[in-house]
Amino acid sequence: MRDEFEFIDHIKKAYGLDRIGDDCAVLPKDARSDLLLTADMLVENVDFRLDWTSPELLGAKVLAVSLSDIAAMGGSPRWSMLSIAVPEHLWRTDLLDRFYEGWHTVAKHYNVELIGGDISRSPQYLVFDSIVGGESIRGKAVLRSGARPGDAIYVTGCLGGAAGGLMLLESGSRYATADKEEKHLIERQLRPVPRLDIAELLAREAIATSMLDISDGLSSDLHHLCKASGVGALIYADQIPVDANLTSIHPTDDARIGLAVNGGEDFELLFTATAKELPMEIADKLRCIGQVTETQGVVEIEGPAGRSVLPPRGYRHF
Amino acid sequence: MRDEFEFIDHIKKAYGLDRIGDDCAVLPKDARSDLLLTADMLVENVDFRLDWTSPELLGAKVLAVSLSDIAAMGGSPRWSMLSIAVPEHLWRTDLLDRFYEGWHTVAKHYNVELIGGDISRSPQYLVFDSIVGGESIRGKAVLRSGARPGDAIYVTGCLGGAAGGLMLLESGSRYATADKEEKHLIERQLRPVPRLDIAELLAREAIATSMLDISDGLSSDLHHLCKASGVGALIYADQIPVDANLTSIHPTDDARIGLAVNGGEDFELLFTATAKELPMEIADKLRCIGQVTETQGVVEIEGPAGRSVLPPRGYRHF
Repeated sequence: MRDEFEFIDHIKKAYGLDRIGDDCAVLPKDARSDLLLTADMLVENVDFRLDWTSPELLGAKVLAVSLSDIAAMGGSPRWSMLSIAVPEHLWRTDLLDRFYEGWHTVAKHYNVELIGGDISRSPQYLVFDSIVGGESIRGKAVLRSGARPGDAIYVTGCLGGAAGGLMLLESGSRYATADKEEKHLIERQLRPVPRLDIAELLAREAIATSMLDISDGLSSDLHHLCKASGVGALIYADQIPVDANLTSIHPTDDARIGLAVNGGEDFELLFTATAKELPMEIADKLRCIGQVTETQGVVEIEGPAGRSVLPPRGYRHF
Repeated sequence: MRDEFEFIDHIKKAYGLDRIGDDCAVLPKDARSDLLLTADMLVENVDFRLDWTSPELLGAKVLAVSLSDIAAMGGSPRWSMLSIAVPEHLWRTDLLDRFYEGWHTVAKHYNVELIGGDISRSPQYLVFDSIVGGESIRGKAVLRSGARPGDAIYVTGCLGGAAGGLMLLESGSRYATADKEEKHLIERQLRPVPRLDIAELLAREAIATSMLDISDGLSSDLHHLCKASGVGALIYADQIPVDANLTSIHPTDDARIGLAVNGGEDFELLFTATAKELPMEIADKLRCIGQVTETQGVVEIEGPAGRSVLPPRGYRHF
């Protein structure tokens, strides 16, 4: 069965759609700016579960994942549209009021205005489509396709926490009764933070040659970046910033690195840069995990047992 | 239970969202143009049924309903994003390929580029969110709020056909085996045509003082227009352009007028204008059905039995 990436490639080729394939579409806006556009569909029991989160946290996450797409282009968010399909039994509750409260808290923080959307009824499950529009300096949006052999590969923050949180939730843990380390991991899953500040700086200072956000998982997202840029990559297992709180659920290094490499939804940034010296103000928020190579489409990882090919094992819907 | 319009009003007031309430949001784009944005969520077994239509017709309709929102502002469509949640049993078929074929036929006709979207898995039902971006001349988008007492009220085309088609489909008729009149009605339901040409002219020539598209039904949509403009309306039953093909399913005038007044999804335009004389090229495509009054929020209809209040009886999800 074809996966969703193969299907999107097929549609792109069939209809000559060359704007599709980055975290956002980029359209000319005016003399100084480009318009950035992204949409994220989140479906109950596929992308979220109501018994794992609160309506407020869900509202916050629905917006945050789209803001992260704007960050991935080095842009600034401006407005949002929100489409919702809601089953009648949930319409009768205060779920949507609480959802909007959480949504609005994030929107206010990032100065994003709700300008439209749609409400429909759903026969059974709750569905959200989160659309965000943003801006980038004309011609300066950071694409996936700009990585060149020799560039260094960086990630922000630490990885694997959101996947660890998902494991905890799947095994029955809940935020309210979790211990401190578990709470941190569950929060990484339920309350993602878009890396807008650092992304804007990387774009403004023309530091990043290519960028995306780690939503599917480092291994898959690095493959996406390499495919778009026509390059390969070599990363070092001991340089991957593994979430320290994973120690509480995984005693072995290998298992923790596995989560950091293949776990999705950390919404950290993955980018490449030629600069040897990064600005002081961001250097301590970044980790160089490897470099871009010439071996097109081949992603390798070097660990204690030597070098091996790293397959894309991140999240797929199909 | 509050309906969706009450809920949207509540959210607008709670968060001070004054851009919400028209068929599209209007944002400044550049010195000459405004950006128009609309989103429509269509859910299987609520907004469409797979056994009533073909994947190609469904794709065409999903885009057409959003193009109609652009028409309702007097704008021109430019691009689209499409978010899809699809159950696994449908992912394994050619449904999405055929859907995109129908979608693309309409997109090509109106010169609309697919620039992005999202694909997710759905536990059970197919869900589409159709986002369309368009442009209007700066400051010239036609809002719902510009109607003034004394303006004439016009509709394009004829009404009630899509509701008649829905009745036929609900009672078991299908396009392939329907007679000529029934085929016309079913097509009105399954293959809506956005009135972009006439809408662009109404905006360009500054003819329309207010406008929307008839998606919920004339009675409800006229209430929406009156509420936004702070006015009332009086329409004449014998001036309503009732779809002639309804005769084949409804012998009485009253029943046909009922469908034309309260049936949704004709996607004709409803607008107001001060001009006594309309341009020849559009006059024969329009019908004047009444006039705007000062009685705020009160919509009346004059029929053979005299004048009565017309309640909003069009479609609601809740």
